[in-house]
Amino acid sequence: MVKWYEKPGSEPDVVISSRIRLARNLSNYPFYGHMTEEQMNRLAGDVKASLENINLGDNSLSFLSGDELTGYRGMSLVENHIVSPDFIQDGTGRMLVLSQDESISIMVNEEDHIRIQVMTSGLDLDSALEVASKIDDAIDASLNYAFDSQLGFLTACPSNLGTGLRASVMLHIPALEKAGSLNRLSGTLSKLGLTMRGTYGEGTKAVGSLYQISNQITLGISEEQAIKNLREIVSQIVEKEREAQKALVTSARFQDRIYRCFGTLKYAKMISTEEFFELISDFQIGISRGILTGSEFQRLSPERFNCLLFQIGGATLCQKEGRDLTAEERDELRAKIVQEALKE
Amino acid sequence: MVKWYEKPGSEPDVVISSRIRLARNLSNYPFYGHMTEEQMNRLAGDVKASLENINLGDNSLSFLSGDELTGYRGMSLVENHIVSPDFIQDGTGRMLVLSQDESISIMVNEEDHIRIQVMTSGLDLDSALEVASKIDDAIDASLNYAFDSQLGFLTACPSNLGTGLRASVMLHIPALEKAGSLNRLSGTLSKLGLTMRGTYGEGTKAVGSLYQISNQITLGISEEQAIKNLREIVSQIVEKEREAQKALVTSARFQDRIYRCFGTLKYAKMISTEEFFELISDFQIGISRGILTGSEFQRLSPERFNCLLFQIGGATLCQKEGRDLTAEERDELRAKIVQEALKE
Repeated sequence: MVKWYEKPGSEPDVVISSRIRLARNLSNYPFYGHMTEEQMNRLAGDVKASLENINLGDNSLSFLSGDELTGYRGMSLVENHIVSPDFIQDGTGRMLVLSQDESISIMVNEEDHIRIQVMTSGLDLDSALEVASKIDDAIDASLNYAFDSQLGFLTACPSNLGTGLRASVMLHIPALEKAGSLNRLSGTLSKLGLTMRGTYGEGTKAVGSLYQISNQITLGISEEQAIKNLREIVSQIVEKEREAQKALVTSARFQDRIYRCFGTLKYAKMISTEEFFELISDFQIGISRGILTGSEFQRLSPERFNCLLFQIGGATLCQKEGRDLTAEERDELRAKIVQEALKE
Repeated sequence: MVKWYEKPGSEPDVVISSRIRLARNLSNYPFYGHMTEEQMNRLAGDVKASLENINLGDNSLSFLSGDELTGYRGMSLVENHIVSPDFIQDGTGRMLVLSQDESISIMVNEEDHIRIQVMTSGLDLDSALEVASKIDDAIDASLNYAFDSQLGFLTACPSNLGTGLRASVMLHIPALEKAGSLNRLSGTLSKLGLTMRGTYGEGTKAVGSLYQISNQITLGISEEQAIKNLREIVSQIVEKEREAQKALVTSARFQDRIYRCFGTLKYAKMISTEEFFELISDFQIGISRGILTGSEFQRLSPERFNCLLFQIGGATLCQKEGRDLTAEERDELRAKIVQEALKE
């Protein structure tokens, strides 16, 4: 089954992915951190039972206990934004529900009892919300959510209180970054109830000019309004990034850089994660803005290289090979995977 | 007519070129620096006349006055080792005799009255000496050399006294350089009456791991013996360099470096001289040691890339285009020339 990130998405030159996350808690259990292991296990069992009859077409769910998420298996899930780094630190009483295409993941007993996450390719928050709501409804139908008619959904952290919704998009905005526009953008987003984060969430640095933008406000606003806000702002950023890229590629030096990135991606025998993100970022500008001319570049699409972002993490490569790889082996395998993508 | 460096040579993986230089002075003129301009012009006329009937097959001679060697024209000759940097500083009374294939150059009124230089591709000092001697004989037949039966040929600098011969080879020895073996090698050469210099002669740094090795002794030794010494030592260095290259290319990191050099040489839109020498040096190891596998590498030969060394100098590119180029234009043209060579 193809993974969610292998499906074509909207605005692929700038928007990598869209994500909806719902934070939910059950009224008949203490909040996470105040439960016994027995309670956590029972809660996980309740969630599993509530989802057993859900119809997701051919996209079946797997139920993984926290103990199974150790080593590269767990790290790979972090690399691909399926679970939080905290979630795999201690597997006790935890459960991960994961769909076959990896678009749906439910962390049970993370900061909240239940965190439903749905990812889609490109800019498509509505589809993600639709699937998340379906799962939300299925759980709600058999379990009792902690809900207050005034406040909405009760959450472990007050920042999620209300809708419990976090809608976010992962953007590739190298030209705005190079132009030094991100500080001002971040300030503007803040005033609009949105926030900009690094590639791997709060407090992380951006790698490969990848930034997450999400709604900050969950109280006194509907899910639909929050998503509409975010979508509108993102559409504006997409246009600004395209304009900035067009300005950037007028430079002969930058065009040279794009071709060099291609030469290295095509021929290097070892590529580190860090270098991969640097190379692919500028290379994608070249593809998106039509800088690379000549027959060998005609088949290249930004979608294909967006997929690579989810295929080249160190732990993800170990997961693919089914064993721990040395740093050198990972760099070699990463180069091979990139080169296979270039040959397609 | 093909240039001398475009002809195949012996040991092309390590020996770029061989060169014979004879320093001669005429007895009926004061040494250079003590002549009037009129004397210098007359001397140049004498040399020209002495060479007018020489038979060099289809390789005809041109006679260029010092005034013609300004700007990029003169600098191009320096880049390609045809004249010394000093020679183009002041053209007054000077003349350059240059053969069509550029293998033969005679500087008139440089440090000595006459400096005959012959270059050949690869390791081939004998052919170079043969041609140099032919020219030497032609001049000797009509003009009077300053010659002492005890000392031999008299020269402006005592370091050239005797045979007036400097035999040298240009070596590409990156592996010995990387292994840190050159200081010891230089010491050994010194004891054997040889000397190692940078790419552009005395006091210059080596670029692209290119070193000149030449005889130091000109007194009390025959031309043949001096050349035999040099050839034997060079053959040993060639073997040592090959061994060192074989050790170097066992490293996966170095193999990666070789492929990256290829990727950049093939796709970069701008390549500076400095970067060119760095890239081509490691790339040549890859070709010579058969590291680059795959059909697109099969046609590549070290000879072809040795040629490039004489085609990509900044002034040489201006000379090719017939106008002053900006730094950016030179870097772009250099990249194009490299890429044409890779396509052949």
